[in-house]
Amino acid sequence: MDKEARIISHFTHALNGDDGALLGDFVYSKDLFIENVHFKREWLSMEQIGAKAVLVNLSDAIAMNATPLFALLGLALPKELENDEIDALLGGILSTCAKHGVSIIGGDTTSADKITISLTIISKANKKTLFRKKAKIGDFIAFTGSLGLSLKGLKALQNGGKIARNSRFIKPSLRIEFMKKSAKNLKSAMDISDGLANDLPKFLGKKGAKISAKLSKIQWLSGEEYELLVAFSPKNKARVLAYAKQTRTKLTIIGQVKNGYLKIPKYRAFKHF
Amino acid sequence: MDKEARIISHFTHALNGDDGALLGDFVYSKDLFIENVHFKREWLSMEQIGAKAVLVNLSDAIAMNATPLFALLGLALPKELENDEIDALLGGILSTCAKHGVSIIGGDTTSADKITISLTIISKANKKTLFRKKAKIGDFIAFTGSLGLSLKGLKALQNGGKIARNSRFIKPSLRIEFMKKSAKNLKSAMDISDGLANDLPKFLGKKGAKISAKLSKIQWLSGEEYELLVAFSPKNKARVLAYAKQTRTKLTIIGQVKNGYLKIPKYRAFKHF
Repeated sequence: MDKEARIISHFTHALNGDDGALLGDFVYSKDLFIENVHFKREWLSMEQIGAKAVLVNLSDAIAMNATPLFALLGLALPKELENDEIDALLGGILSTCAKHGVSIIGGDTTSADKITISLTIISKANKKTLFRKKAKIGDFIAFTGSLGLSLKGLKALQNGGKIARNSRFIKPSLRIEFMKKSAKNLKSAMDISDGLANDLPKFLGKKGAKISAKLSKIQWLSGEEYELLVAFSPKNKARVLAYAKQTRTKLTIIGQVKNGYLKIPKYRAFKHF
Repeated sequence: MDKEARIISHFTHALNGDDGALLGDFVYSKDLFIENVHFKREWLSMEQIGAKAVLVNLSDAIAMNATPLFALLGLALPKELENDEIDALLGGILSTCAKHGVSIIGGDTTSADKITISLTIISKANKKTLFRKKAKIGDFIAFTGSLGLSLKGLKALQNGGKIARNSRFIKPSLRIEFMKKSAKNLKSAMDISDGLANDLPKFLGKKGAKISAKLSKIQWLSGEEYELLVAFSPKNKARVLAYAKQTRTKLTIIGQVKNGYLKIPKYRAFKHF
């Protein structure tokens, strides 16, 4: 058992493994965004770091079909940061929150060796909250957008290259409109943050799947995509595809849920530890 | 303006400067607890680190007279930690949560150079929620327990000494019973986390105070005490003192709120930056 699985196993009595926790009418989600773990300072501008920290947190709420309303911001900053760098970082955080109608209601600031951004998002649960592991035998499995671009961007940066400002690695796309329309016809959803090869087993739980799409290694492995992985019953296929079209969201069906095991290529999955 | 004040000034439209945020029937609070900022690994055992991370977070809720119920845990851990160290850290977190009736409902785990614990506490607001800056002219100002022990503990550790397992620096006392009984007769409250010299101005806002108690330099400066700073009207003095006695809580009246400035000794206050 790796270390991350070990920590999660301690909380199995409490955690359902979903992107957020539903409590009454609200969904609570929390993600850490840490320098040299999730980003390097030379890869992203301070404003981009702030914006991405917010987007990856909102992604959890969107994946559960909740509407983000409030945020608590924990910010730990190195002492050597200049005032204009702090202003740019905060600018990225505040403008991205504002754009998505999220008010920062509290938080904590302190120093640290590395830029550490911890956001807690409080979201209003909508009529139907979506969870992982709810897909049934025969349901279609699909993902939004394209997979692979985030890892391509990361590799370019790791090799000392530059990437476009609108690169998926810098600025994830949240599929808010598609989720709003299609949620009532979806069975299960999560966001793809650790790569499809790592996230699909979490999505299916104890079920298996027959994967009919041909996916490349980079599509299986690319993490931090923040695209949606969804499941829907065959009878809703036409509706879900129509909502994708209406909201100009590319949707790729990769296979169907079945009993037994999930056979996926044996790539080394991304691990935090 | 120092860097922490600069960050906070960005949020003044949203933040009231209180320990937590009241939203409907719930109080939300969030504190970061970071290695080499708030503790060193050689000072506290892994279990003590986990326990203190929870206690300093619960302290915010208690100071507002809210009852902690749920927590979201963000945990970033260095790769070199051994499994038994992770188990001990989690043990400290889980047992302290359990002792205070708090369920962990979600969170995030990742790697980091330094142990980083970010907790968000969701608490039920009780009949009366207490805030900072609500004291009126003539109100008495008092603190619970003793001040100075945390800084004494810290200094001993910094000098290579050892301190008792029940030292205030290792294990803050939360004044839960005193708060429960006396909240209805208090005007204002906060916890003392940055030292009285730093926290008293935040407690008074634009008001001043006449400090009649003789306090030592260490009493003014000792941070991370997590004792309560409270204000109450003269007509409630006897009641508040009676509640302190009933709950075996030492309560020291240090002065009264007045118009104008607060004159406190010019010590260099503790700053995170």
